[in-house]
Amino acid sequence: MPIIQVEMLKGRTIEQKREMVKEITEVISRTANCPKEAVRIVIREMEFENFGINGELRCDI
Amino acid sequence: MPIIQVEMLKGRTIEQKREMVKEITEVISRTANCPKEAVRIVIREMEFENFGINGELRCDI
Amino acid sequence: MPIIQVEMLKGRTIEQKREMVKEITEVISRTANCPKEAVRIVIREMEFENFGINGELRCDI
Amino acid sequence: MPIIQVEMLKGRTIEQKREMVKEITEVISRTANCPKEAVRIVIREMEFENFGINGELRCDI
Amino acid sequence: MPIIQVEMLKGRTIEQKREMVKEITEVISRTANCPKEAVRIVIREMEFENFGINGELRCDI
Amino acid sequence: MPIIQVEMLKGRTIEQKREMVKEITEVISRTANCPKEAVRIVIREMEFENFGINGELRCDI
Repeated sequence: MPIIQVEMLKGRTIEQKREMVKEITEVISRTANCPKEAVRIVIREMEFENFGINGELRCDI
Repeated sequence: MPIIQVEMLKGRTIEQKREMVKEITEVISRTANCPKEAVRIVIREMEFENFGINGELRCDI
Repeated sequence: MPIIQVEMLKGRTIEQKREMVKEITEVISRTANCPKEAVRIVIREMEFENFGINGELRCDI
Repeated sequence: MPIIQVEMLKGRTIEQKREMVKEITEVISRTANCPKEAVRIVIREMEFENFGINGELRCDI
Repeated sequence: MPIIQVEMLKGRTIEQKREMVKEITEVISRTANCPKEAVRIVIREMEFENFGINGELRCDI
Repeated sequence: MPIIQVEMLKGRTIEQKREMVKEITEVISRTANCPKEAVRIVIREMEFENFGINGELRCDI
């Protein structure tokens, strides 16, 4: 029953998310040895002003 | 000092959230044996295109 | 498909967790209007030296 | 490679977030003894109807 | 700069984790269109008494 | 009522955590404009085999 969270900056299309969810589910199912229907994936999208790296907001870089 | 996170699909009303927060707080307070004012609950709502199950986006099902 | 996370200090018994999971599942199922088998609950237990409040570690209070 | 998440109610300005990210990065770098460029900070902003405390929604208090 | 969290029950070997991290990184890099060195993955392992499904602890099923 | 999570590799001392919690609380209180007693900090420590970067487990680097 793996639960996957993907935290990333905004801007990906539904088509990108669709491919991402399909392929991550396959990887998890195979490497963790569990059925694909047990895999849950939550995508969280961040605004550029809500991500900091090296002490700076991503929107300032 | 329990911190509860509820991750669910969008679409619940404030009235549903109000009842949910009230009752979860009571359950946690009673079963974890802590005062109700120590319980924090964060609700996170997902878009249907941001939740994957069985390799598919929820918006495609 | 709600996913609940409960973050709390160590020390609760399995019996407490069993009751907590049973009752939170019922509350979520009823207030979010979803089947009980769709509810996933993750319990995370913290060491007292890994929780801070008011600027102090919980193990120092 | 510390990953910091800051979960807080909506309403802070970009200037507040900028200062927050800058200073938290310095604190983590110094106390965890790691380079500043290894520190990632995610800010998550909550609606007032999505935070519960003492059994009540924050928007009702 | 995607951050991935994998929450799963205990019991996978290092070899399984190694394969999982390698392949998830490739999927994220390709579908989110970002360099592999920007991908961070955190694996969290749960005890069977800390996961609830359908109102029951996993250790009781 | 900010909730901070710090996810980092194992190996820091209690003294390092004590300083970290004290100083992060001061930064959050000042930049988010909230009382120090409203700040909660959760530290999560990872095993080296549970963190992946650039497709590799941290324990292999």
